[in-house]
Amino acid sequence: MLQAGGAGAFACQRLTCVLAALSVATIANAQQNPAAAAARQWRTAHESAILAEFMDLLAIPNLARDVPNIRKNAAAVSGLLEKRGVKTRLLEVPGAPPVVFGSIDSPGATRTLVFYAHYDGQPLDPKEWATPPWEPVVRDGRIYARSASDDKAPIMALGAALDALKAVRITLHSNIKFVFEGEEEAGSPHLASILEKYKDLLSGDVWLICDGPVHQSRRQQIVFGARGITELDITVYGPKHELHSGHYGNWAPNPAMMLARLLASMKDDEGRVTIDRFYDGIEPLSETERRAVAEAPDVDRDLMRELWLGSTEGGGKKLVELLNLPSLNIRGMSSARTGAQASNVVPATATATIDIRLVKGIDHDTAAARVIAHIRKQGYYVVDSEPDAETRMAHAKVARVVIEPGGYDAARTSMDLPISQLVLRTAESARGPVVKLPTMGGSVPLYMIDAILHAPTITVPIVNHDNNQHSFDENLRIENLWDGIELLAALLAM
Amino acid sequence: MLQAGGAGAFACQRLTCVLAALSVATIANAQQNPAAAAARQWRTAHESAILAEFMDLLAIPNLARDVPNIRKNAAAVSGLLEKRGVKTRLLEVPGAPPVVFGSIDSPGATRTLVFYAHYDGQPLDPKEWATPPWEPVVRDGRIYARSASDDKAPIMALGAALDALKAVRITLHSNIKFVFEGEEEAGSPHLASILEKYKDLLSGDVWLICDGPVHQSRRQQIVFGARGITELDITVYGPKHELHSGHYGNWAPNPAMMLARLLASMKDDEGRVTIDRFYDGIEPLSETERRAVAEAPDVDRDLMRELWLGSTEGGGKKLVELLNLPSLNIRGMSSARTGAQASNVVPATATATIDIRLVKGIDHDTAAARVIAHIRKQGYYVVDSEPDAETRMAHAKVARVVIEPGGYDAARTSMDLPISQLVLRTAESARGPVVKLPTMGGSVPLYMIDAILHAPTITVPIVNHDNNQHSFDENLRIENLWDGIELLAALLAM
Repeated sequence: MLQAGGAGAFACQRLTCVLAALSVATIANAQQNPAAAAARQWRTAHESAILAEFMDLLAIPNLARDVPNIRKNAAAVSGLLEKRGVKTRLLEVPGAPPVVFGSIDSPGATRTLVFYAHYDGQPLDPKEWATPPWEPVVRDGRIYARSASDDKAPIMALGAALDALKAVRITLHSNIKFVFEGEEEAGSPHLASILEKYKDLLSGDVWLICDGPVHQSRRQQIVFGARGITELDITVYGPKHELHSGHYGNWAPNPAMMLARLLASMKDDEGRVTIDRFYDGIEPLSETERRAVAEAPDVDRDLMRELWLGSTEGGGKKLVELLNLPSLNIRGMSSARTGAQASNVVPATATATIDIRLVKGIDHDTAAARVIAHIRKQGYYVVDSEPDAETRMAHAKVARVVIEPGGYDAARTSMDLPISQLVLRTAESARGPVVKLPTMGGSVPLYMIDAILHAPTITVPIVNHDNNQHSFDENLRIENLWDGIELLAALLAM
Repeated sequence: MLQAGGAGAFACQRLTCVLAALSVATIANAQQNPAAAAARQWRTAHESAILAEFMDLLAIPNLARDVPNIRKNAAAVSGLLEKRGVKTRLLEVPGAPPVVFGSIDSPGATRTLVFYAHYDGQPLDPKEWATPPWEPVVRDGRIYARSASDDKAPIMALGAALDALKAVRITLHSNIKFVFEGEEEAGSPHLASILEKYKDLLSGDVWLICDGPVHQSRRQQIVFGARGITELDITVYGPKHELHSGHYGNWAPNPAMMLARLLASMKDDEGRVTIDRFYDGIEPLSETERRAVAEAPDVDRDLMRELWLGSTEGGGKKLVELLNLPSLNIRGMSSARTGAQASNVVPATATATIDIRLVKGIDHDTAAARVIAHIRKQGYYVVDSEPDAETRMAHAKVARVVIEPGGYDAARTSMDLPISQLVLRTAESARGPVVKLPTMGGSVPLYMIDAILHAPTITVPIVNHDNNQHSFDENLRIENLWDGIELLAALLAM
């Protein structure tokens, strides 16, 4: 908790003071939003220091399951806040990386803003990276490192924004809380119990989720929901062990072909999911939300060029429209070996991992159950553990389906709420016209915040879309860090 | 070349001598064939020595590409023949493991029998093996080692058969040649040029191919052809690099789903290949061949139990019938990662390796061209090297199809030829009623022998069908080695 009037604290000052502190040249280019203008001023003078501090943070390996290192990250993130006079504590439940909590009390404030981010990163294979994932480097205006974008960037941007606001002594009108999670990429398995345990501490009028990328046009976007998710591993079975393909091929069922047929049965030519009732129950968009989607820039052509695509799925629908539908994606597929490693066998098993992204109105249990019902409809006997010889001989087709723990539902905050309108106005005064989306494509466990804390969530992303998050060579476009500092300064001060 | 009358050589003796050499008890159980009876007599008295010699041969790593070790194998195989008085030489062409050649001239012989086998083994991953592949061990009546079955077993069995025939001084009625290849599992890339170069040396009235397994009923089988083969790697392309499945899933085409749909389009529910003209041109079976297939024992139920299968492909056709049709098999399939290694991405590519087994009447180039035409018919632009950005953007679907070198055609010798009938009579006199197959399921490059040497080929397998050849834990059932010595002794003496 930051004490008003403490050393270097946020003293009560007015807009005029801020403007006076800026040079005439800066004022001419400044945004209408004084906090954003102050952030630009500060950043321009401290770029090297900001980058140096950020690279130190990125150099700490941050897989949620790597206990010693994840705690080092928590300590570093706490330190980053405390350096700015924010009082912090670690919120703990057994078996989980700590949540780094920080707070600033603002005298006279009538609302509380909670800024959420996460400091853990996606699992990775270092062999796939051009440079080591935890040895951050700058190349071509980008920082390359695991979590450079997802999701340490907002943590650094909030720190720099606090510096900027302090430097020009801007008044905060809201109480501020920071909630930095340490196992989001592991599916936030303990977040619900942390929210329950620290319910009062974590309450607020709105949770501002600092995660995900800005729009592909590089324009700021504000997002009012996130899709839910469920993930399934599907294994189908051929012969007990690999067989010579000459002696047994086209007599012994080939599990790779079985899996191909099963997966192919799940979508039509245009990419529409053909699983029964897959789209049933979708909560329709409001008038405001429909308008926002229609107004979102069409970047599909540019993206296709960037990604070397000659076509897209979705029957001609734009990407921004498709995000308001549930999706079914194959994450990976494996059976025996391919290419130079292949041998002339009928494989013994074939496995696919799929994810289903969910929108409001379809819960994750229902979605997983629909997939399993579809697999049964294709003639499979479905089991959830390794099938024995008797089971495999008793059924023409056997599939093992494991629903990964950690699935969750979608969340969506109405764009018509007063707090939604305030966030939009503030963001536009800082960053110009913003793209407004009812839902982001990715999944963050926003539903918990609604369910446990009854607080609306609004996502305020800052990183570039082309950041390779969740893959190798993750990176942050440094310009996005600069823009993000301005946006977050404005939101801190709103 | 073995000299008649030399030390321990095959002196002219008659059936009566052989019978006199056998005890009364042995005679009661002996086969009608005196050479087979002599082989059993010899083997019973020398089991340990035969196994010890075989295990030494199996202990030499035998991948065709492992030049120093493959030459050690060639030397060991030559030594095995020379120890039996067979004159040997190494047949060489640049870049190839040598063919070990051996010959026995039999005075007065009016025919020449060529015994073919190969001493190299399938590539492997030692991590998959219960015990190291080149440290042979005996467990439960089987020898476990790479090439225990495929294809060092016939080499050892021929050696032991020669010992047995010499011991009872049986007359050989035929000139004998041995041709032991060193790169069959690499697709015999130099065999054609070796056959051309040593055309006269390698001529014969019949090539007896000692490769492949006996019937699944464990009855001896004699096979009059082998299927041809062609192998293709198919890679389909999604986005330039992996993408976040939430932000881009179901907009960016998923190559794993594309590949699943493509593979699924190649077969119907019953496993019949749906590629246009896939079955066109098949040379029909003769009356004798059809009768042989009809008479072959039906082991499908037993095999299903052994392999834990609840169903088979082929629309109700027996395995033995299906071997007379071309087949399409997926050897392996891969795209990004599955299970615990999976991450929430749209993969960038997906690859399948497939093999096509061919029967007489369809050549391997035609078969590969039909697959490629099918891929085009599914809307793919087909390339044979890595497609660049322009190519990928210019086409909705791009597939890279690489036809692996080393494909070849099927071969089939008529069962009605006098030499075919002689082999069948001899085998039945040694081993009782045999299963007669027009074609084996696997592929060996028999077509070359017909094309270059104009010699018919007949396959005389000795190893067990459940030998895990081409996979890990390859093994030979020792009983099959004993039976094989008897069969090969009879054929050597016919």
